[in-house]
Amino acid sequence: MYVINAGVVTISDKGSKGQRVDESGPALKEFLESKINAKVISMIIVPDEQDLIEKTLIYFADVLKLDLVLTTGGTGFAPRDVTPEATKNILEKDVPGISEVIRSKSLTITPKAMLSTGISGIRKGTLIINLPGSPKGATESISFVADALTHGLDILKEEANECAR
Amino acid sequence: MYVINAGVVTISDKGSKGQRVDESGPALKEFLESKINAKVISMIIVPDEQDLIEKTLIYFADVLKLDLVLTTGGTGFAPRDVTPEATKNILEKDVPGISEVIRSKSLTITPKAMLSTGISGIRKGTLIINLPGSPKGATESISFVADALTHGLDILKEEANECAR
Amino acid sequence: MYVINAGVVTISDKGSKGQRVDESGPALKEFLESKINAKVISMIIVPDEQDLIEKTLIYFADVLKLDLVLTTGGTGFAPRDVTPEATKNILEKDVPGISEVIRSKSLTITPKAMLSTGISGIRKGTLIINLPGSPKGATESISFVADALTHGLDILKEEANECAR
Repeated sequence: MYVINAGVVTISDKGSKGQRVDESGPALKEFLESKINAKVISMIIVPDEQDLIEKTLIYFADVLKLDLVLTTGGTGFAPRDVTPEATKNILEKDVPGISEVIRSKSLTITPKAMLSTGISGIRKGTLIINLPGSPKGATESISFVADALTHGLDILKEEANECAR
Repeated sequence: MYVINAGVVTISDKGSKGQRVDESGPALKEFLESKINAKVISMIIVPDEQDLIEKTLIYFADVLKLDLVLTTGGTGFAPRDVTPEATKNILEKDVPGISEVIRSKSLTITPKAMLSTGISGIRKGTLIINLPGSPKGATESISFVADALTHGLDILKEEANECAR
Repeated sequence: MYVINAGVVTISDKGSKGQRVDESGPALKEFLESKINAKVISMIIVPDEQDLIEKTLIYFADVLKLDLVLTTGGTGFAPRDVTPEATKNILEKDVPGISEVIRSKSLTITPKAMLSTGISGIRKGTLIINLPGSPKGATESISFVADALTHGLDILKEEANECAR
C-alpha cells in the first residue's frame, strides 16, 4: 500500500510574520498522518498574497509532485482572503463535490459554514483542497471527506485507472 | 449595532415597462427591514439585459457602496434569463455556499429548485445574492440564509476582521 | 404533449475503438424512453479527447438542436477524464443545481460520489448533463433529477416561458 505524499499550506498574514503561532498546519499534519495513510513532506506559512499563494501551490504540485495539498486560511469574507481565487487560477480540473460536502456537513455544526468560500480541484497529479483557517474548522472539514480521498488519489496516481473507467 | 445598507434589483422585462407590478422587490424590502437589521437604500427595476444588469450591480456596489444587494428574477431557463451571467461577470469573489444552501433548502419545498441558476458573491465591500423571480421564492430563499448573513457582512465591513482570521 | 428530443454521448477511449461494449449509452436510452417522454435521436461514442467532445456537443446542440444531451464517462480523476472541461467550454449558461442534486443523492449510495466532477448547463436550446461512466451510476444519476427536468425543458423550449417569469 503506497503512501500519500502530502503538503500543508497555512495562509496567514500574522502567521507569516511570526506574530501568531500556526496551530492549523500542525493539526492538519497530525490528522493526515494518524487518520489516513499520508506523509506530510512539506509545510509552509505564506501571507494572504494571491501571487505568493499561487506560486506555492504550483511549486508543491509541479516540482514536489505531491499527491495532496491542503490549504488552511484565507477562505472568508475579509478583503485579504484570496486563497480560493489563487487556487482557482492554478487548477486544471474542478472537483466541486469535495467542497460541497465540506460545506454541507459543516452546516450541521454552524450556519456560518455557508460563508466559507473554499474550492477543490486537481493540478497535474495533485489534489488541492482549501480548508478554513481555524484548527477545529480545518480538521473537521478534512475529516468529512477523508474516506473518499484515498480512492480519488488512487485514480489520480493512475494505479486504479483501469477499474475507474 | 450598525445597520446593513441594502439594495434590491428586480430584473423583469415586463416590470421595467410597467406591464407588470413588481411584487418581489417590495417583498424583499419588507423582509430585509423587518427580519434583519437592514435599511433598503435603493430599489430598481431593470429589463433582462445583461449589460444593464451588470451596470446596475456595479453602480450599487462601487458608487452606492451598499453592504448587501439582492436580485430577483432572471435565474431560470428562458433565453432572456441572464441574471447569473451578468452577476458572474462583475463579482470579484464567489461565495458558492450561499446559493448551495438556498437550492438545497428550496428542494425540500419543490424539486424545481434544482433548476434555479442563481449565484452569490462579493464585489468590493458588497455581497450580492441572486434570488428567484417570484415573491414567494425570493423571500423564502433569502430567509434560508438570513441568519448567517449578518456575520458575513460584519467581516466584509472589516468590523470583525481580526476575530475572523 | 411534446416529445423531448434527446442525445446520448458515451465518452470512452476503449469504447470508441471497439475494445469495450458500451453499456451506459443504451442504458440511458432505455431510461429516457421508458421513464420520461423522450426520444433518443442520436447516440455516439467518442474517445476522451477534449476537442472531439466539444465538437460533438456543439453539433448535438447547434445542428441537431436536441432538447437534452446526456454524456456518460470522463468525469473522474484520471488524467484523460476531460468531459466536464469540454462541457464547460461550450456551455452558455451554468445550471449548478442539477449536478449538486446528482452528487448529494449519489452520496447516500457511496461517498465516492463527491469525486464525480460532472457539470450541467445550457447551450442555446439544449440542456447538457454530465453523468458518470458506469451504467448503474449513469442511470441512477439521471433518475435523481428526472422529475424536475421536464419542467426545465418546457421553459427552455419557451412553451412555458410566460408562466415561468
